[in-house]
Amino acid sequence: MAGPDLDELVARAREGQPRAVARLISLVEDSSPRVADIARALTPYTGRARVAGLTGPPGVGKSTSTSALLTALRGEGLRVGVLAIDPSSPFSGGALLGDRIRMTEHATDPGVFIRSMATRGHLGGLSWATPQAVRVLDAAGFDVVLIETVGVGQSEVDVVKLADTTVVLLAPGMGDGIQAAKAGVLEIADVFVVNKADRDGADATVHDLKQMITLARRELRGPSWRQPIVRTVAAKGEGVDEVVSALRTHYEWLVAHGELDRRRAARAREEVAAIALRRLHAELADLRDGDRLGDLAARVAARELDPFTAADRLIAELKGS
Amino acid sequence: MAGPDLDELVARAREGQPRAVARLISLVEDSSPRVADIARALTPYTGRARVAGLTGPPGVGKSTSTSALLTALRGEGLRVGVLAIDPSSPFSGGALLGDRIRMTEHATDPGVFIRSMATRGHLGGLSWATPQAVRVLDAAGFDVVLIETVGVGQSEVDVVKLADTTVVLLAPGMGDGIQAAKAGVLEIADVFVVNKADRDGADATVHDLKQMITLARRELRGPSWRQPIVRTVAAKGEGVDEVVSALRTHYEWLVAHGELDRRRAARAREEVAAIALRRLHAELADLRDGDRLGDLAARVAARELDPFTAADRLIAELKGS
Repeated sequence: MAGPDLDELVARAREGQPRAVARLISLVEDSSPRVADIARALTPYTGRARVAGLTGPPGVGKSTSTSALLTALRGEGLRVGVLAIDPSSPFSGGALLGDRIRMTEHATDPGVFIRSMATRGHLGGLSWATPQAVRVLDAAGFDVVLIETVGVGQSEVDVVKLADTTVVLLAPGMGDGIQAAKAGVLEIADVFVVNKADRDGADATVHDLKQMITLARRELRGPSWRQPIVRTVAAKGEGVDEVVSALRTHYEWLVAHGELDRRRAARAREEVAAIALRRLHAELADLRDGDRLGDLAARVAARELDPFTAADRLIAELKGS
Repeated sequence: MAGPDLDELVARAREGQPRAVARLISLVEDSSPRVADIARALTPYTGRARVAGLTGPPGVGKSTSTSALLTALRGEGLRVGVLAIDPSSPFSGGALLGDRIRMTEHATDPGVFIRSMATRGHLGGLSWATPQAVRVLDAAGFDVVLIETVGVGQSEVDVVKLADTTVVLLAPGMGDGIQAAKAGVLEIADVFVVNKADRDGADATVHDLKQMITLARRELRGPSWRQPIVRTVAAKGEGVDEVVSALRTHYEWLVAHGELDRRRAARAREEVAAIALRRLHAELADLRDGDRLGDLAARVAARELDPFTAADRLIAELKGS
């Protein structure tokens, strides 16, 4: 792909052509050698999209909630991009969110773009490809980018590093889970959603959450965001407007407190570090010419050398290269 | 900790003193500045332990199986170290395997050492701290090291990079899961265990697995290991001796086919690369003196600079340092 083609692709993506958007995401996801050129070409058009992360344990109704949220945001006339992040555990079992939603009501809506992304095997996981895809959607004029994690794992924590606002979904009947999870979810949630709120135990779940929030606040200093708890029945669309409203309120809070800039600077920091590490990793791999890493590894396997000394030698050669 | 203290600690660990073993693992897990010295001191005494990885989706009875396997291996007079790897998702919910087993029959057995390790926040996850802990157990004279992953995520895949033999546990009634998981588990399993084999659906699970294995073999070239399927009822100890036997047979196959050396060389390669990357990451962090990364990230957040150009500058400074 030569330069003019890239310019045209970017121009078409900015006009909102789904094929151009999809093509750009494929290029950045596959670590195309042009990924840096793409980022450079897109950067001037970015910074406008609100980025929300959705996460939560299996069984809380994440895909139903995402679909309902999409409907509500579209109802306000907003263009919405969805990135469904799949950590690709061999045991994940479920169909990809994006694939499921794609087949529903949003499939033919030009104001919606849905993409599943696998993070397996990516050095740095979410930290690498996802910000590139967010940049594409941002430059393509989507007002909101929803990042949803599929499955359970490190990605739930990492999503926070990418989002302006992180929504944690829970459901009744997971009492033990909430207790065990409290440290983690309190750290990452900006908005709590208790889905399936028409079921037994919803009051108890909300009550537990409130207690956790109150306890955590005692340990905090200074003014801070008070995490709201929204009850929803996503399958019936109930409470979803309140989630949209909570997202907006949080975004306004971020702007008013300088927190949006702070989060985006932290996000840029993560991204730059991830790109630098990936490049260094590639340079290390290049030292396999003459298989330098392989030679050192063989000596480690034979216990002639410890791995730290081997790593030191590798780094010395990298810096000399 | 001065040099002589380290020598003494290593000597005590080699005598099998659990406190010395535990202390060494703590030091390597916490990335003590002495971690390289520890690896150097241990390396001459390593290479003897057989390393087996146990993995599988939640609900298959992993902790019960590990406990039963421990009993069976101890029955053969083998000393066994267990590393329970916890990817520390905020949603994991379950108690740590190691903590549960520690309270059972093996608690007072000097031939057993059990340790839970959290991988959250570790660059490279399992790739980093786990090989260090394996090295400690190997040097301390444990005949078998069992690495068990807790929860679901990338760690299930990564465990293969650390183990001589990978055991994948499944259970009846997970038919859809097996179908969805087939590509992943076929790649990583050396031995399949269908636990809870006294339940309905066990025959179907075994049948499905057999079909998957047969299909996968058609795509392979050359002679290869045929993954056995062992039925167990771990809670009653049924079939566990057959698992031990399958582990031994696979180990003998590894040795006879030169595959053990190949796997250990690959493991050393992963480890050296992980250590080198971690060091480079630390050097990048040092560039925060004068907060060079922060300056660049702020310019990226302000969209004055794209993150790839920022990463290039960071690497240039790293190499100049």
